[in-house]
Amino acid sequence: MKIALVGIGKIALDQHVPAIATSPDWELAATVSRKGTVDGVPSFDSMDHMLDARSDVRVVSLCLPPVPRFEAAKTTIEAGRHVMLEKPPGATLSECHTLIGLARQHGVSLFATWHSREAAGVADAQAWLADKTLRKLTITWKEDVRRWHPGQDWIWQPGGMGVFDPGINALSIVTKILPDPIHVSSAVLEVPENCQTPIAAEIDFHHPAGAEVTASFDFLQQGEQIWTIKAETDEGVLILSDGGANLTIDGKDMLRSDAFSLTGEYPRLYAQMARLVESGRIDMDLTPMRLVADAFTLGRRMPVAPFVE
Amino acid sequence: MKIALVGIGKIALDQHVPAIATSPDWELAATVSRKGTVDGVPSFDSMDHMLDARSDVRVVSLCLPPVPRFEAAKTTIEAGRHVMLEKPPGATLSECHTLIGLARQHGVSLFATWHSREAAGVADAQAWLADKTLRKLTITWKEDVRRWHPGQDWIWQPGGMGVFDPGINALSIVTKILPDPIHVSSAVLEVPENCQTPIAAEIDFHHPAGAEVTASFDFLQQGEQIWTIKAETDEGVLILSDGGANLTIDGKDMLRSDAFSLTGEYPRLYAQMARLVESGRIDMDLTPMRLVADAFTLGRRMPVAPFVE
Repeated sequence: MKIALVGIGKIALDQHVPAIATSPDWELAATVSRKGTVDGVPSFDSMDHMLDARSDVRVVSLCLPPVPRFEAAKTTIEAGRHVMLEKPPGATLSECHTLIGLARQHGVSLFATWHSREAAGVADAQAWLADKTLRKLTITWKEDVRRWHPGQDWIWQPGGMGVFDPGINALSIVTKILPDPIHVSSAVLEVPENCQTPIAAEIDFHHPAGAEVTASFDFLQQGEQIWTIKAETDEGVLILSDGGANLTIDGKDMLRSDAFSLTGEYPRLYAQMARLVESGRIDMDLTPMRLVADAFTLGRRMPVAPFVE
Repeated sequence: MKIALVGIGKIALDQHVPAIATSPDWELAATVSRKGTVDGVPSFDSMDHMLDARSDVRVVSLCLPPVPRFEAAKTTIEAGRHVMLEKPPGATLSECHTLIGLARQHGVSLFATWHSREAAGVADAQAWLADKTLRKLTITWKEDVRRWHPGQDWIWQPGGMGVFDPGINALSIVTKILPDPIHVSSAVLEVPENCQTPIAAEIDFHHPAGAEVTASFDFLQQGEQIWTIKAETDEGVLILSDGGANLTIDGKDMLRSDAFSLTGEYPRLYAQMARLVESGRIDMDLTPMRLVADAFTLGRRMPVAPFVE
């Protein structure tokens, strides 16, 4: 199936283009971007031009930042094409609900992807936790924004989510592996004086059985970069590290030998999109994004030193 | 049916107690509050004491501020009682979803009330707008916080929503009367330097057919207090004023003579709760609250002068 990629920035070139190139399902047939291009692939400077010129492209994958994503998704759905959305699926929850309604109306597939849920250790972590009693869960997501998000000014603007841009990956994993629903009970958001979004956050969650669930996000981490979820249960301690790529239980490496049969998060997402299109389904789980919106609504903001990249 | 009222503050005494007193469906059988009481009604100092002592009370109406509301609702549902929630139905969207799951599990009714939707002019406004083409909709919600919210410090704390505490009333009306979904496309939130929540807000909404939809909220309004929604259409101008209590179309008063057959917003809510309990249903429309969470997520914050009551 022919697919178009919209927004040729860092995530598109690092992840989407290689995943499509190695996929048995997809052929990258067009790109839309203000600046970026992909060698050998026809490029367009606007959604409308591409959709008009390429009726053979039935599926569009959007890698734009959250704020401009809605208009691109709306245009694409109204043109009768299937849509795959980078995370988060939009700048607001309500616009995502509107897209669900539009996709139903036009009979197209819509996929809110959460790439971290496809990390190698996540499915096994979910299976193991299903019948355990959780006592404590600690999310530690600490990375150096200058290293991983160079030049991404939109992260600091309204709707850019700040440290929740990576943090939502942790929330996407936790809401998949825990059998019970959690919600934000309090949060402290550290916001640089010259930014609109948090550079660090401490979040407490309510867990229905009273387990202590917390998250610590930091965008100024030096040295070791940490993307870890530690779950302490009545039957042992589970640790997902490296963003979900590694899994240990009581210190023992638990990664199944077949965990890499589909190599990596994005190839799995594109395989899933192929199945959604074939079966005409919509997959829009907004749970991780709702937790972010809740943290922004309920969080206590603390001003901190200006951020200069 | 016997009902307990929890949180005997301003809204409970001004609205809930009189509405229950004049209702053919309800008898106020108990109250729970740290301070407030209602003459002649047994009062309790904790939810657990009341629920244990009064198995005859099958329905509980919660008038607590948003932040403590979840624990009270959870306790009540787990005790097998039906729950009615003052607006907003919680401090976060996720906790409301958790309550929906709990209510289903325990087979009880759950009602997220939006009292402004029951204002006298709202149903007729909805009916009139259903087949019109909207060109412009302007929400103006400007009131003096010192006059209407004396001593309500929680409004300025995280989760208290600030000017969105009244503003969500306007959003509850607009999401009921408009046939099309809207979402926040940008917002400016003015936050006093000594507060956590906005004292004023300007919001732009996306409308699917391109109508210009805006809201202007202000908590420092002097003189005339304004709670007005003006809808300009291809077939005339509709104005809902006084928080929905009055309706004009092209300047002509449109209020039906039977609009006051149930006198006021809260009596209608309690009548609706009686119907929900009788039929075992859940009514939890979170659309207005989602728009607030979206404004908090996407809004640009501007510091303004400290607020001193």
